[in-house]
Amino acid sequence: LHKGTMPDLWQDAMDHAVTLARKAGEIVKDALQNDLKIMCKSSSVDLVTKTDQNVEQLIITSVKEKFPEHSFIGEESVAAGEPCVLTENPTWIVDPVDGTTNFVHGYPFVAISIGFAVNKMLEFGVVYSCIEDKMYTARKEKGAFCNGQPLQVSDQKEINQSIIATEFGSNRDPDAVDKIFSSMRKILCLPVHGIRGVGSAAINMCLVASGCVEAYYEIGIHCWDVAAAAVIVSEAGGVLMDVEGGPMDLMSRRVLAANNNIIGERIVKEIEAFSAVRDDHNAGAQQ
Amino acid sequence: LHKGTMPDLWQDAMDHAVTLARKAGEIVKDALQNDLKIMCKSSSVDLVTKTDQNVEQLIITSVKEKFPEHSFIGEESVAAGEPCVLTENPTWIVDPVDGTTNFVHGYPFVAISIGFAVNKMLEFGVVYSCIEDKMYTARKEKGAFCNGQPLQVSDQKEINQSIIATEFGSNRDPDAVDKIFSSMRKILCLPVHGIRGVGSAAINMCLVASGCVEAYYEIGIHCWDVAAAAVIVSEAGGVLMDVEGGPMDLMSRRVLAANNNIIGERIVKEIEAFSAVRDDHNAGAQQ
Repeated sequence: LHKGTMPDLWQDAMDHAVTLARKAGEIVKDALQNDLKIMCKSSSVDLVTKTDQNVEQLIITSVKEKFPEHSFIGEESVAAGEPCVLTENPTWIVDPVDGTTNFVHGYPFVAISIGFAVNKMLEFGVVYSCIEDKMYTARKEKGAFCNGQPLQVSDQKEINQSIIATEFGSNRDPDAVDKIFSSMRKILCLPVHGIRGVGSAAINMCLVASGCVEAYYEIGIHCWDVAAAAVIVSEAGGVLMDVEGGPMDLMSRRVLAANNNIIGERIVKEIEAFSAVRDDHNAGAQQ
Repeated sequence: LHKGTMPDLWQDAMDHAVTLARKAGEIVKDALQNDLKIMCKSSSVDLVTKTDQNVEQLIITSVKEKFPEHSFIGEESVAAGEPCVLTENPTWIVDPVDGTTNFVHGYPFVAISIGFAVNKMLEFGVVYSCIEDKMYTARKEKGAFCNGQPLQVSDQKEINQSIIATEFGSNRDPDAVDKIFSSMRKILCLPVHGIRGVGSAAINMCLVASGCVEAYYEIGIHCWDVAAAAVIVSEAGGVLMDVEGGPMDLMSRRVLAANNNIIGERIVKEIEAFSAVRDDHNAGAQQ
């Protein structure tokens, strides 16, 4: 069989992921535009939890119906005690609401992130930034798109002409905060044009793919925050690595996405890395 | 004359400001979508300068034709040596492209900011976030709006339930950077829900007005970055103050906008303030 005539095994799954992401986005937008407006801010944390669970349940149910053999890793399922382990089996890796703090405040960057791996290799990624109504999609070896328009990373090779995205994160442990601030300061003073961060790992990575920022790094993210966007970055011509260099480890809670290796490796030199408890720390016991 | 039947002296000017902001937004979007895409990133700084100057010239020319007696303070005019001084005369205070670093990178937060003061009091403000297509408007005592929808600041009174917006800014002087990082760290560890910043002072302030973030502060901004948005924040129910407390001084290069005094004054306690060369430092000589 010629490569060009090979049937695309996973195109069905990807089409379904796009449909689900859009449906999930409607639920999230509805919660934001209706429920969040009529409740006091102090209850909004409950609303995001409820929405998170609703959306994940919608996606799981629909995937299990259509692809009963497939596995599933989802933020809410893992929170409820399901194992977080990537096997050879086709696996959906889902964050129902990426940017929960943003959601709570109505800050307009909230995404549904659906990644898909087979034999532990990512095959496609779908990130729907629902308030902006931007549907980012990428299929391995077939390019990355936003609302159907092809994406291309920035061609910048000069670190001092770059914008770097990162986040302060939710870790308030003093040692971690020391390292987060120290890394940011060293990067700012390289100097770079600026440091940004929209409060969603998936959307930050899509901004790398779109060429709006040269790189994004963070320690503390989870596999479901970055799996889908990793395909989008790499199909837009970008690179993924660990924050200390070397290949990205999806379960390590660390990610660096860059437009190219020059920028990526330059940032690696400035990052004061630290470890987070791995996503698969219970995998041995639960397998 | 009853107050209700008082003609609104400046409504004409405000309507004109909205028209000009929209026209300017088209020029900015056109530059981003056409010129920026076909040029190498290294020339994009020249493109933003050219666009800045074009937009400011468009606004000045049109204002001078319609309101020949009015005064004008604009970023590019001041850069070209015009005085930066607020007199009693009706004065347009204009930033043709707020978020120039964003513009250079195609990062999607770029605004046209048009404020208007009479007798040194701000009368209206128009901020057009052109890539998002959000037109923020406010007229003194008549409320604040985004695309016609009324705006209201967050009702949050708990600092540890808040998101604070700020920026690293363009100052890379080590003493200033020390204070910027130290303030951010103290605020992060209050703790707050998060720290954000979209890279445009005017849009950050509009996010305060919209209730998406509780407060925004920065040292190093200019009067044209904040004049328009100050009206929008205050008409949305928010407050403006200096970063050390007390009334905001439009020419001081310092601003703190908050949803209420409780949050604003809580942040004042954490900010390590410093001074910037005032916008009107040449005013005495030039008057």
